[in-house]
Amino acid sequence: MKNILIIGAGRSAIALINYLETHAGDNDWRISVADKEIKQLEGQILSSTRVLKFDLFNQEQLDNEVVLSDIVVSLLPASLHPIVAKVCLAKSVSLFTASYESDEIKSMETEIKAKGLLFLNEMGLDPGIDHMSAMQVLDRLKEDGHELKAFESFTGGLVAPESDNNPWHYKFSWNPRNVVVAGQGGTAKFIQEGKYKYIPYNRLFRRTELIEIEDYGKFEGYANRDSLKYIDRYHLENVPTVYRGTLRRTGFCRAWNVFVQLGMTDDSYVMDHLEGMTYRDFVNSFLYYHPSDSVETKLYRAMHIDQDSDIIHRLEWLGIFEDEPIGLKSATPAQVLEKLLTEKWLLQEEDKDMVVMWHKFIYRLDGDSNDTCLTSSLVVEGQNSVNTAMAKTVGLPLAIAVKLYLQGKITQIGVHIPTNKELYEPILKELQSYGIVFNEVITS
Amino acid sequence: MKNILIIGAGRSAIALINYLETHAGDNDWRISVADKEIKQLEGQILSSTRVLKFDLFNQEQLDNEVVLSDIVVSLLPASLHPIVAKVCLAKSVSLFTASYESDEIKSMETEIKAKGLLFLNEMGLDPGIDHMSAMQVLDRLKEDGHELKAFESFTGGLVAPESDNNPWHYKFSWNPRNVVVAGQGGTAKFIQEGKYKYIPYNRLFRRTELIEIEDYGKFEGYANRDSLKYIDRYHLENVPTVYRGTLRRTGFCRAWNVFVQLGMTDDSYVMDHLEGMTYRDFVNSFLYYHPSDSVETKLYRAMHIDQDSDIIHRLEWLGIFEDEPIGLKSATPAQVLEKLLTEKWLLQEEDKDMVVMWHKFIYRLDGDSNDTCLTSSLVVEGQNSVNTAMAKTVGLPLAIAVKLYLQGKITQIGVHIPTNKELYEPILKELQSYGIVFNEVITS
Repeated sequence: MKNILIIGAGRSAIALINYLETHAGDNDWRISVADKEIKQLEGQILSSTRVLKFDLFNQEQLDNEVVLSDIVVSLLPASLHPIVAKVCLAKSVSLFTASYESDEIKSMETEIKAKGLLFLNEMGLDPGIDHMSAMQVLDRLKEDGHELKAFESFTGGLVAPESDNNPWHYKFSWNPRNVVVAGQGGTAKFIQEGKYKYIPYNRLFRRTELIEIEDYGKFEGYANRDSLKYIDRYHLENVPTVYRGTLRRTGFCRAWNVFVQLGMTDDSYVMDHLEGMTYRDFVNSFLYYHPSDSVETKLYRAMHIDQDSDIIHRLEWLGIFEDEPIGLKSATPAQVLEKLLTEKWLLQEEDKDMVVMWHKFIYRLDGDSNDTCLTSSLVVEGQNSVNTAMAKTVGLPLAIAVKLYLQGKITQIGVHIPTNKELYEPILKELQSYGIVFNEVITS
Repeated sequence: MKNILIIGAGRSAIALINYLETHAGDNDWRISVADKEIKQLEGQILSSTRVLKFDLFNQEQLDNEVVLSDIVVSLLPASLHPIVAKVCLAKSVSLFTASYESDEIKSMETEIKAKGLLFLNEMGLDPGIDHMSAMQVLDRLKEDGHELKAFESFTGGLVAPESDNNPWHYKFSWNPRNVVVAGQGGTAKFIQEGKYKYIPYNRLFRRTELIEIEDYGKFEGYANRDSLKYIDRYHLENVPTVYRGTLRRTGFCRAWNVFVQLGMTDDSYVMDHLEGMTYRDFVNSFLYYHPSDSVETKLYRAMHIDQDSDIIHRLEWLGIFEDEPIGLKSATPAQVLEKLLTEKWLLQEEDKDMVVMWHKFIYRLDGDSNDTCLTSSLVVEGQNSVNTAMAKTVGLPLAIAVKLYLQGKITQIGVHIPTNKELYEPILKELQSYGIVFNEVITS
């Protein structure tokens, strides 16, 4: 019997747990799910799955659970992974996550290798399926002798058209906080036509690219973090254009930019004087003083937008000009904005979310005089607010990787992300049976 | 005999040293000046002043010098003060600086008090003379029974009109790096008409206030750091407007904002690919890719400025569009910009700098039906690029405070800034004999 310990039972856990439960009998697995809150699992999982109330900072409990496990999957917030990683390393247990590989975990690599363990990160959707689906095409193009001219890749967690009933065309299918502070992790970096390009946070939502996906219409993409890192990871040395980004419905970024410009997404300081303040007061605190102009007028003027702009429609719909109490005593601007958005962009019970991924490859075969453009896109719609496309596309790749690992079908050791064939071939193949299928279109 | 140890012999040191030298004979002082570079002092100081080549990280040397001293003055960069402060505390020696009081030094206060020492910070120009000159008026208004409605305070280190020969109307009279990263220390905070106001970095240089000073014309001010801190420090509780800022000549901020918007002042990441790049390439790396548009055109479009705007004139004058090699292999954007500006905004040998300070107080006497406005302004011009107004206005208050302290005329102990009468009265009075005189104008 093999023991699987899943730490963290948040939004992406259900799809992961259910997949592992389906395969537990055949493989003789015992599944344990540990979190400080476990109520949300009620009715969603099998009785054979062990559920335990868990405190990550109870070192004894953490040690005891990890030592009993053959593999640990952490679905905790990324900042907490190192705590789990240290114990996994000490107790010689492999660790899988869907989060970005951290320097802290990378620094443990020598010891991880020495113990023959695998710490596999970025094994969800983005990062995760993006790596696997891109590498599958990139490896194929290379094998076919094509010279790559450009690689672009965009992903977005959005709302399905049938549940899309607000002017932002957006609802939360994952951590709202990450949406509010998106882009604040550092200047966006990429390379375009051989030129290094840098976009600071305050320009990020104004430097968008338009993308159209068959049957789904128009989207816009903004640059995501450091694309230059992927030159090495994807073996894209000397490729003139490498650009990764995040997708939203068109018009989102222009309106979101108002929050960025005014400082309403700032998470670096606490506003101490929120008691008794309304959302209208909150907005006003980022605008110049005027004895008679309304908050709306001051915002239009400061942002140089027309009163009848669709930006205004979006802002008004959110209720940022309302005299409604915020209900917080002290919070960062980002936390205030998150509170408002969490109410407005809530995925209602029967709402369906939608995950969209889009890659573009421009390449040329030796001797050809023209470039070829291949786009590869994925659209997955959720079933409802629990069985979301986001939970499915984050949880399933991780779950399949766990299965393959416990079956001895993954031979890699050390600290990895899923960019090599041994991982992406079987995982992408199995994901197809769950409707996670890329659509390739070639144009010249 | 009393020993004065001055650590750091940078731009502001000469005025400080010369003042102390003048008073050394009468007071039986021995002056030591310690720095890793001491050449710049040649010909500027008396032979009786001891000059020592000094390594701050040589703990033995630091310990030995501090223990011999009756007072230490640190003119080092602010981040290095805690190193000196720890030794001063251990050896029971008082410490004076012209830098902002740090949390690290504030945390030592209990011990400093227990030993009867005084750690006096913010004893230069800004911070320094600003505190003293503001508090003198504020205390007077309070004594006269006036109710304060608004307090605003602006300071700038600029270039004197007769040496002002560039379109930015600016030259460096202090650390260029501080000018490049100005405003990046956190969101600017203040209170206006009873409303808390926050300005993020990307809006800082667009939210300026116009200020006119008799005989010197127009200036513009942008918000400086956290003005809310001064409510407590200046005893301004319940004053509806408290605003502190930095002065530039009009038009500076609008043009500087281009650098801020494009990300050219970013100091948070290193550009690794600078080798062989020109300033034109540098600018281009912050602009969108276009197969044929020039760098100039792309910048105009991205910033929504007209080709004949005076912003363009300023940018062109700096040479940012020139194909001149940067000459750095790797550097942050801020470091690249600093290199260019240091060449262009250099104070030439015979150039005169200019320090400008401006306070505004709006108040009302009980029973009056109208507000009264009092402005208090200071303009000091330098003699040349060595005897600058900046060195004089930073160095002299510090020097006078050292004199008063060694003469036993300062009774405060603990960690302080010069906001109380015991300090500001004698110091401001003596500064007048050096031409540091405020001009008060009352309007109703």
